[in-house]
Amino acid sequence: MTVEIIEKHQSFGGQQIKYRHDSATLKCEMTFSLFLPPETKTAMPLIWWLSGLTCTDDNFSQKGAFQAYAAKNHVAFVMPDTSPRGVADSDDWDLGQGASFYLNATQEPWQANYQMYDYLTQELPALVYSLLPNFSGKESIMGHSMGGHGALMIGLKNPQRFSAISAFAPISNPSQVPWGQKAFTAYLGTSVNTWRAWDATELLKEVGTKHAPILITQGTDDNFYQVQLNEQAFLAAAAASDKAISYRKEIGYDHSYYTIATFIEEHIAFHISYLK
Amino acid sequence: MTVEIIEKHQSFGGQQIKYRHDSATLKCEMTFSLFLPPETKTAMPLIWWLSGLTCTDDNFSQKGAFQAYAAKNHVAFVMPDTSPRGVADSDDWDLGQGASFYLNATQEPWQANYQMYDYLTQELPALVYSLLPNFSGKESIMGHSMGGHGALMIGLKNPQRFSAISAFAPISNPSQVPWGQKAFTAYLGTSVNTWRAWDATELLKEVGTKHAPILITQGTDDNFYQVQLNEQAFLAAAAASDKAISYRKEIGYDHSYYTIATFIEEHIAFHISYLK
Repeated sequence: MTVEIIEKHQSFGGQQIKYRHDSATLKCEMTFSLFLPPETKTAMPLIWWLSGLTCTDDNFSQKGAFQAYAAKNHVAFVMPDTSPRGVADSDDWDLGQGASFYLNATQEPWQANYQMYDYLTQELPALVYSLLPNFSGKESIMGHSMGGHGALMIGLKNPQRFSAISAFAPISNPSQVPWGQKAFTAYLGTSVNTWRAWDATELLKEVGTKHAPILITQGTDDNFYQVQLNEQAFLAAAAASDKAISYRKEIGYDHSYYTIATFIEEHIAFHISYLK
Repeated sequence: MTVEIIEKHQSFGGQQIKYRHDSATLKCEMTFSLFLPPETKTAMPLIWWLSGLTCTDDNFSQKGAFQAYAAKNHVAFVMPDTSPRGVADSDDWDLGQGASFYLNATQEPWQANYQMYDYLTQELPALVYSLLPNFSGKESIMGHSMGGHGALMIGLKNPQRFSAISAFAPISNPSQVPWGQKAFTAYLGTSVNTWRAWDATELLKEVGTKHAPILITQGTDDNFYQVQLNEQAFLAAAAASDKAISYRKEIGYDHSYYTIATFIEEHIAFHISYLK
């Protein structure tokens, strides 16, 4: 398991580092980025960030404005890429590279490489843990849009591993919206029963209130809100007694990283309260 | 004088807006960006940001992480583009479009359009003032690399207009370094006497201590530091009695926007102290 540093920048006294490695799970070369806060003797937790359609690990690194708060709160951030690279792809921006939906594909031509769920839950964690000085063992997960769904889905499927989950503008019920239906049909086939294991709304019905605390931020001026990101089904799936889901609509904010930058301090504070 | 909004994002309760207009001075279509903090009844000052080689108005908007502090301090920011567009250019990344050095060119083929100094001191201010609700009339200027020099040069030439000047990794003595010599030769010709009016180190010799307070931040791990950004001549040009220049070397920081994001809060605090 070799990993190579391809970029390194000092940032708020910590380090913003970009790595390249050969992934055995995805059978291709991958990049990911890591923010390490300034070193102290205190053990440090880790937050996973999953980006949206068309992104790479660079979008959040460069536009997320999270480093000030990660440094202050002494937490590391890891930013994986959004899909395998240099392998199967489509001509559409919302399918294939940059659009993995973080699941394990079962259909051709995706099956050989699009095993992002296994990559994010097995191969990449082992690699990232080895790069963290003084890791506390505590992890949480957040993301944006497709990555907001990825955070909800992976967090709900792994309650022992993640102490908190948050999302900006998540595709919270992909089985029922155009982006998700297109991707799930391609990656998983037309049998919608197989989709349930990868849809956060279906997963929430299954786990009931047995999940990590969830915070969701959604801008009301988000172009994708009504068609792709509607929250009604997700919130309806929550048990009436579920006090661990907080859904915040923010007036006038859109789908861009300007919204993420505005509310990232709040999201980090939410995560930190459960990572101590 | 018409101006069109082509992008608008809510950010930290304020607005990050991108505009397009036809510049009479540059004889081409230009874009610029503006950050307006949340509206209050208090009059609001304006900070100019000038970017470096290859940049547009988007780099600082997206990667500068300044909006949190601009909103908190109730100050507007304007980000011009770095050159005329769609006109004379060269095949080199450090000459022509994205590389105007913010001066008025006298040589062909640049003279017709590359009048950035006039654009930034006459046409664009008039337009920007008209877009600011409740402008206090106080202005200051900052920038990065080529734009760091632009801030020093324009600030030193206009002591009545700018209350403070700051720069990240400025090309502080362009007449004496490869980037500056190449650009000045092309835009101004080979008569080096004509270069003095556009070189911050020469301008500092002229004005003595009669200039706005200056803050410069330079990372020690900046690839361009020794050859292009060396500060010795600029600091030597400062009068021995000049207490209004603060030069800070920051260990381990590089030429990237990660450095700008790390120290922008400090630069804004410096400007605000003179903009009140």
